[in-house]
Amino acid sequence: MILKNIGKHISLNPSEKSQLLSLLPSISVPKKEIIIDQGRICDTLFFVESGSFRAYNLNKDGKESTIMFAPKDWWVTDMNSFLNKVPSLLSLEALENSMVYTLSRSNFDDLLNKIPKLERFFRILFQKAYIREQLRVLDNISLTTEERYLNFIRKYPDLAEKVTQKQIASYLGVTPEFLSSVKKK
Amino acid sequence: MILKNIGKHISLNPSEKSQLLSLLPSISVPKKEIIIDQGRICDTLFFVESGSFRAYNLNKDGKESTIMFAPKDWWVTDMNSFLNKVPSLLSLEALENSMVYTLSRSNFDDLLNKIPKLERFFRILFQKAYIREQLRVLDNISLTTEERYLNFIRKYPDLAEKVTQKQIASYLGVTPEFLSSVKKK
Repeated sequence: MILKNIGKHISLNPSEKSQLLSLLPSISVPKKEIIIDQGRICDTLFFVESGSFRAYNLNKDGKESTIMFAPKDWWVTDMNSFLNKVPSLLSLEALENSMVYTLSRSNFDDLLNKIPKLERFFRILFQKAYIREQLRVLDNISLTTEERYLNFIRKYPDLAEKVTQKQIASYLGVTPEFLSSVKKK
Repeated sequence: MILKNIGKHISLNPSEKSQLLSLLPSISVPKKEIIIDQGRICDTLFFVESGSFRAYNLNKDGKESTIMFAPKDWWVTDMNSFLNKVPSLLSLEALENSMVYTLSRSNFDDLLNKIPKLERFFRILFQKAYIREQLRVLDNISLTTEERYLNFIRKYPDLAEKVTQKQIASYLGVTPEFLSSVKKK
């Protein structure tokens, strides 16, 4: 699935493909395991080959907020921690038994030097990630909770059954009670 | 300033520099002029050579929210509109007399084909933009209004005097009265 994902934006020849895979070891992650730990530097970019993940932040008062979800076929990390080597502001937990490819920061730099056309792939990937976050800020301002819940279902069709209502409510920034009243409509 | 901005991440030779500049005409924008119009497709990526801008969204109820600020030395657009040719969700207004370089969508595609190392430049640019938006979501969750106001001042040191308190409050997602009580502390 990872080669298909990259193939959406650039084409690699067989030798580039094997070079790429040699720098991206895959690991199995059992349900509930944490692969990014808030407060520690995260030096890995993950690609979700199968399964799904949830990212959350614990604030000073111990309040947990769901920040994002990463279903299969997604790239995910705490990008600020990965790029700038600062402590991660989020934790990433497997919602089910999953399989991920792991690209360390040094392999990421290596790979971009060895296969420069990957610059184009990651340029498009980060451009889309930026759009997603920009739209999220705009949606929070301009849409009702009902519209945002429907967007969530549309955006993550397979996830709605794997996460709790509390986690969805936290992602949407409302209380579980409010979400439940919206769903009844 | 634009060549210096690009030079932060890649080096261009003199012929690439002139090729680049030939595809990025500059325009003067008088104070209060709108260069991105909510509801219309925005097919231009702007670089702020001098001056500064404010992006805002008007929702269905006519409520205006400040989405972001773009001081000098920033690249700015409605990225979803620019990339996907959909109507823009924001308007971009000059806060003072300004000068911008304009890169149309077709020149952007051209430029990346002609000077492939610009892929690296824009990969880093969008990676940073993604981080900025991801941090904004996290800051809204984990920091107090006071901390977020101090971050705003630090992030945009020259802007605080050019924008109204109402615009800053709207950007921080609080009422002007609440911001004023925070500033008194």
